[in-house]
Amino acid sequence: MHGYQGRESERLRDQAGALVDLLHSDTRYPPGSQVLEAGCGVGAQTITLARNSPHARIASVDISADSLEEARTRVDGAGITNVEFRHADIFALPFDPAFFDHIFVCFVLEHLSRPLDALAKLKAVLRPGGTITVIEGDHGSAYFHPESPAARAAIDCLVELQRASGGGNAMIGRQLYPLLSAAGFDAVHVSPRMVYVDSSRPDLVEAFTKRTFTAMVEGVRESAISAGLARPDAFDAGIRDLYRTAESDGVFCYTFFKALGTKR
Amino acid sequence: MHGYQGRESERLRDQAGALVDLLHSDTRYPPGSQVLEAGCGVGAQTITLARNSPHARIASVDISADSLEEARTRVDGAGITNVEFRHADIFALPFDPAFFDHIFVCFVLEHLSRPLDALAKLKAVLRPGGTITVIEGDHGSAYFHPESPAARAAIDCLVELQRASGGGNAMIGRQLYPLLSAAGFDAVHVSPRMVYVDSSRPDLVEAFTKRTFTAMVEGVRESAISAGLARPDAFDAGIRDLYRTAESDGVFCYTFFKALGTKR
Repeated sequence: MHGYQGRESERLRDQAGALVDLLHSDTRYPPGSQVLEAGCGVGAQTITLARNSPHARIASVDISADSLEEARTRVDGAGITNVEFRHADIFALPFDPAFFDHIFVCFVLEHLSRPLDALAKLKAVLRPGGTITVIEGDHGSAYFHPESPAARAAIDCLVELQRASGGGNAMIGRQLYPLLSAAGFDAVHVSPRMVYVDSSRPDLVEAFTKRTFTAMVEGVRESAISAGLARPDAFDAGIRDLYRTAESDGVFCYTFFKALGTKR
Repeated sequence: MHGYQGRESERLRDQAGALVDLLHSDTRYPPGSQVLEAGCGVGAQTITLARNSPHARIASVDISADSLEEARTRVDGAGITNVEFRHADIFALPFDPAFFDHIFVCFVLEHLSRPLDALAKLKAVLRPGGTITVIEGDHGSAYFHPESPAARAAIDCLVELQRASGGGNAMIGRQLYPLLSAAGFDAVHVSPRMVYVDSSRPDLVEAFTKRTFTAMVEGVRESAISAGLARPDAFDAGIRDLYRTAESDGVFCYTFFKALGTKR
């Protein structure tokens, strides 16, 4: 659900705010447990993760030093003390084998061309009996009323750009079960977390339909146009139609997938 | 979720079995209340409806005398005594205004070209303060892994046939909020009921992915071909790809929408 230019940090904060309960509420780690947050980015999920497990010791890593610096600033600003940040690549993790009790991965696999290999690397630093939690979106799960081919085309630009930039897969959410199973995790359980928005839920209209999803699509406007994926007028029509779903007779649906697996 | 030829009754029974809890568990009517089930068809929902509210008096109507006869046989066979069947058209209901305390409508609006007018007719026989419950599917909510353009094209045949046969709308689920609101119901609340199926849930793979959804699409094969919507080989490839989503690394998602509204 991220990447690309423009209003990025603001959008991620909005998203984290609106979706915190939906995505996080059932993730609590025991006191003293060692938890790896792999790919923390700008820390959008880190604060919630750390607050929900205040006595767990969380190591948050990211491949981007800039993102990590922003995450550190936010987490420090929130007065959180159980997170240590470390600059690291998921594919070359600087931890001993079986070091962690639990691993948490949120909105990361969607950006990787080899998500299965990443899961194998993560599994190596997880102790037997430890768990991995993976949360991903799925842009193919978005549908809305009124329907709009222009809006679909604009969303497809985002999917295509994510594929083009490093081989990501914006529709990976639905694949978490086969991915975690193929990586050899046991007792894999996936629960979809559907966001349903109509005008009886004005906070969600604002926080999700407009400021998270549509803003995210809008954020790739220049990239999509310069990559030749869309003409400006067609893209703008798609964005208008996405905002149209936020009106009083509009409806917007999106599903996140949360998977839990255990290492044998 | 129904209509068309082929394995119809069997499929509807499977569906009712697998989805009973998901769709029905929060619908219970008080003892003595008068409930209208509008469009009961072959009674796929009637038995559950009646069992969950054993002391409510249920009037189940349908426009098809044949379906009604099958429903009566099934309900009688189940030993249920709180249902009366009546042959009637939703657009010409043989009941006094404000006669019913509650109305239940399941998989009916999707078949009507004027769902809003139907809701107005239903509202007329509902007492002030009474509730309407509407459950509909949405074929645009179906997505799966592996993705398949052929499978999508086969599903689109079903959507197109439903539109052609009487102006139905197979993607009406997402529209329940605006529809009930436009019909003047108060306090409209819609809750999506997502069916998520992976191979850790073999009963659902069998009952939903294969015997409900894919069988339903497969059921329109001859109609789709004779209507010129698909070539036999292309349609069959789509069906194969839908069955493919039922294999061990496949995933299938579908969402039903349940709406509750109150008459002022």
